Amino acid sequence: MAKRAAEKTRLTRKDYEARVPRLREQLVQLQVRLKELPCPVLLVIAGVEGSGKGEVINTLHSWLDPRGVEVFAFHPPTEEERERPLMWRYWRSLPPRGRIGIYAGSWYTEVLREAMQPRAKKAGFHHALQRIEHFERTLAADGALIVKCWLHLSREAQGRRLRELEDDARTAWRVTPDDWESHRRYARLAALTATMQRATRRPGAPWHVIDATDERSRNLAVATTLLARFQEHQRRLRQATARPERRRPVTPLRPSGRRLLLDLPLDQKLSAAAYELKRDKWLGRLNAAVRRAAAKHRSIVFVFEGWDAAGKGGAIRRLTSAIDARDCRVIPVSKPTDEEKSHHYLWRFWRHVPRAGMVTIYDRSWYGRVLVERLEGFARDDEWRRAYTEINDFEAQLTERGIIVVKFWLHISKDEQLRRFRHREETEYKRHKINAEDWRNRRKWAAYEIAVGDMLALTQQPPAPWHLVPANDKRHARLQVLKLATRRIEAALGLR
Amino acid sequence: MAKRAAEKTRLTRKDYEARVPRLREQLVQLQVRLKELPCPVLLVIAGVEGSGKGEVINTLHSWLDPRGVEVFAFHPPTEEERERPLMWRYWRSLPPRGRIGIYAGSWYTEVLREAMQPRAKKAGFHHALQRIEHFERTLAADGALIVKCWLHLSREAQGRRLRELEDDARTAWRVTPDDWESHRRYARLAALTATMQRATRRPGAPWHVIDATDERSRNLAVATTLLARFQEHQRRLRQATARPERRRPVTPLRPSGRRLLLDLPLDQKLSAAAYELKRDKWLGRLNAAVRRAAAKHRSIVFVFEGWDAAGKGGAIRRLTSAIDARDCRVIPVSKPTDEEKSHHYLWRFWRHVPRAGMVTIYDRSWYGRVLVERLEGFARDDEWRRAYTEINDFEAQLTERGIIVVKFWLHISKDEQLRRFRHREETEYKRHKINAEDWRNRRKWAAYEIAVGDMLALTQQPPAPWHLVPANDKRHARLQVLKLATRRIEAALGLR
Repeated sequence: MAKRAAEKTRLTRKDYEARVPRLREQLVQLQVRLKELPCPVLLVIAGVEGSGKGEVINTLHSWLDPRGVEVFAFHPPTEEERERPLMWRYWRSLPPRGRIGIYAGSWYTEVLREAMQPRAKKAGFHHALQRIEHFERTLAADGALIVKCWLHLSREAQGRRLRELEDDARTAWRVTPDDWESHRRYARLAALTATMQRATRRPGAPWHVIDATDERSRNLAVATTLLARFQEHQRRLRQATARPERRRPVTPLRPSGRRLLLDLPLDQKLSAAAYELKRDKWLGRLNAAVRRAAAKHRSIVFVFEGWDAAGKGGAIRRLTSAIDARDCRVIPVSKPTDEEKSHHYLWRFWRHVPRAGMVTIYDRSWYGRVLVERLEGFARDDEWRRAYTEINDFEAQLTERGIIVVKFWLHISKDEQLRRFRHREETEYKRHKINAEDWRNRRKWAAYEIAVGDMLALTQQPPAPWHLVPANDKRHARLQVLKLATRRIEAALGLR
Repeated sequence: MAKRAAEKTRLTRKDYEARVPRLREQLVQLQVRLKELPCPVLLVIAGVEGSGKGEVINTLHSWLDPRGVEVFAFHPPTEEERERPLMWRYWRSLPPRGRIGIYAGSWYTEVLREAMQPRAKKAGFHHALQRIEHFERTLAADGALIVKCWLHLSREAQGRRLRELEDDARTAWRVTPDDWESHRRYARLAALTATMQRATRRPGAPWHVIDATDERSRNLAVATTLLARFQEHQRRLRQATARPERRRPVTPLRPSGRRLLLDLPLDQKLSAAAYELKRDKWLGRLNAAVRRAAAKHRSIVFVFEGWDAAGKGGAIRRLTSAIDARDCRVIPVSKPTDEEKSHHYLWRFWRHVPRAGMVTIYDRSWYGRVLVERLEGFARDDEWRRAYTEINDFEAQLTERGIIVVKFWLHISKDEQLRRFRHREETEYKRHKINAEDWRNRRKWAAYEIAVGDMLALTQQPPAPWHLVPANDKRHARLQVLKLATRRIEAALGLR
């Protein structure tokens, strides 16, 4: 029965070859149009063993212009990859806008392989699927076209295919004992696959189950699926960009956050003598804490946000003086480079996630999305609104992997900022630190207050809490940063 | 005696602290000025065990603005690094223009460690030093400031320092058995170091030997050396940019190269039937050769250069159809991104050097330096002139690491190009492939002929030879590419 069904869909070589030239033309046209569209294409080719994932990919690759395509196959994670969150290697591999990434198996391979292990936990599987679902949702929301094909074979067809491959001297090497093992456990994998597809199927990223019994039909089905999804996507993108956005006044999403800011007492002061005494004590303790973290292969991510001239640079210098410079990296975040601009806004931060035991200090960060990008209109309304969730998800991935995340908001009053701006303008070697943009931002103080408040309220989560630091007095602020950093690291290590 | 000498140079804490504030100010000013200068700074801190490399780096890091500095410490190479040429990890780590990279030990650590091994070969040591010397010369010629400090301790002073560190409970952990081993073999290391310094000391990259007996003097000496070298460098760069360049007519360096081009017969033709028959045979043989290479962990780098419309894209498509898409990457080379522009021109190509067993196809390449950059004046005279050597050196590093390098020049006549340009303009789906720049380049045909000739003559080297492919007939050209690629790979594997 199964065999007959398969034969029914079999496509003759003649019919196949008659259809290929037109398809190839359409695919190359897709690539030409893609260059003008601000989106990347992710084509996932997953499926059961023997379904011909490699063949499909090679065929597609030969049909497309290979200069606009990159194929990714993920082998077991390397050392560098294992030291980062699960999704790090996938974020790194994302194609820039205008290009196509073809994923052999993709992020699904590893997850299914794990779940097939004898002692695999159900909860772990579901959690990993949730991560993937977030990942794809994040990319799709940013305009990426995600086309996921699952190449399906019945158990019988799979057995037949594996035997065929084995019987041919040219292909016998491709059949491994793992393939037969996977065949024996067909039912188990089918159940897991069903769960997986249910959990990761959504409007922006549906699953296309493709019958792989007949190779030619399979190839055509994948190509036509890609073309159809691209056309639909193109239409949707055009509609989205056609609708111009009305600039709205800045109103708080969560007034509680802004109140936190306004209520922060700013009148603490510290004498030079008291500061120096305490500073050395805390520098020593911080140094010990950082070394303990490294010994346990825990990395640390510091995030510094704050008003212009709030003293981020000075605080970072004091902090780094307690850390071995060889283990520590400061990432100054200003305008994205053009490579960064051609990716999702989180990509540039994923790039710098530290290896095990290392420290990364972000001087400004992904929070730019809900601050400057919100207020300057660099991000659309829906973009910055969903960024809170995306950011929480990003940080959750860091903390889950054991990375200690410490976030600071350095707070000064509007008057104090004015004093510091003037001081910078009057001081020869500080003049480079102040420009017209700073004055422009200052005029938007009230709007920033609202955006900062929303940020504090909406991204305040237990494993990656915000530390509000009163910074009108520089010495007080610097000491606070040292103290809070030390205590957070100690707490994360279970030391106090 | 040694002790007394040490005490003589000892700096009191008071004197030290009196000098630090001014130094810090100068260092930060250096960083401010550096942002306007088009050059990176590489500060190498090497030296004997116990000389305090880590302390110096931490001190400097705390004096500088950490946002413009990155510190690199190289641990034993990771898997990904071992699969590339020796210098790959160092190329990857280079700071962009305007920033400072501080190197703990740097590329010298690994080389000295290797040379200290019981069975180390003298020739290997000298070869590695030569590589380093080329590396530094290449960067210095491009405007990089390279400051190399060697922290020196006499044998007695080293023993004393190690004992001091051991006796203090806070620092005892820093002394390892390796340190004492290195102390016992002080004389051997000193001899190797002398050889190393002689081999890698040159005008753009001298060694500064710094007495590390007194910690405070040592810190000041490193900082003042950096400042002095920066000032001198600044002057030199200003002079270099002050001298405007006279555009000279394009004259051949090596007329023999151009004759090669002119003598190439372009009248070969291949019928569709003959092509298809032979193509399949060669595709199969190429596929087998590529798989054999992968099995031996040999990577392959293809370079495609040729006239506009010579058929590079088509040839690459035929080539990739014989290679598993999962092992193969096509790098289309057009305008550099801004990250690429802020590095040495070879950096963007080093980035994509393949892992063991993988294939990278460069669609245009580093040869742009001696073609378009030479003719359009994007590179200065001295820049493109020295590029031949730099390119030969780069390719030698690839082939030494076992990478098979296959270079093609696709050659067509001027008339044939005209026919193809017109055809592109008339064909709807090919129109995107032709623009005003193509027509502009065409008007410089004669100049390009000279530049291509020089390139062929000056970068024709045994392990990475050029293949000239007559490409007036597309089928003939594509088959030639398949044949030549296959034969090169087979020869490199010792198969024929």
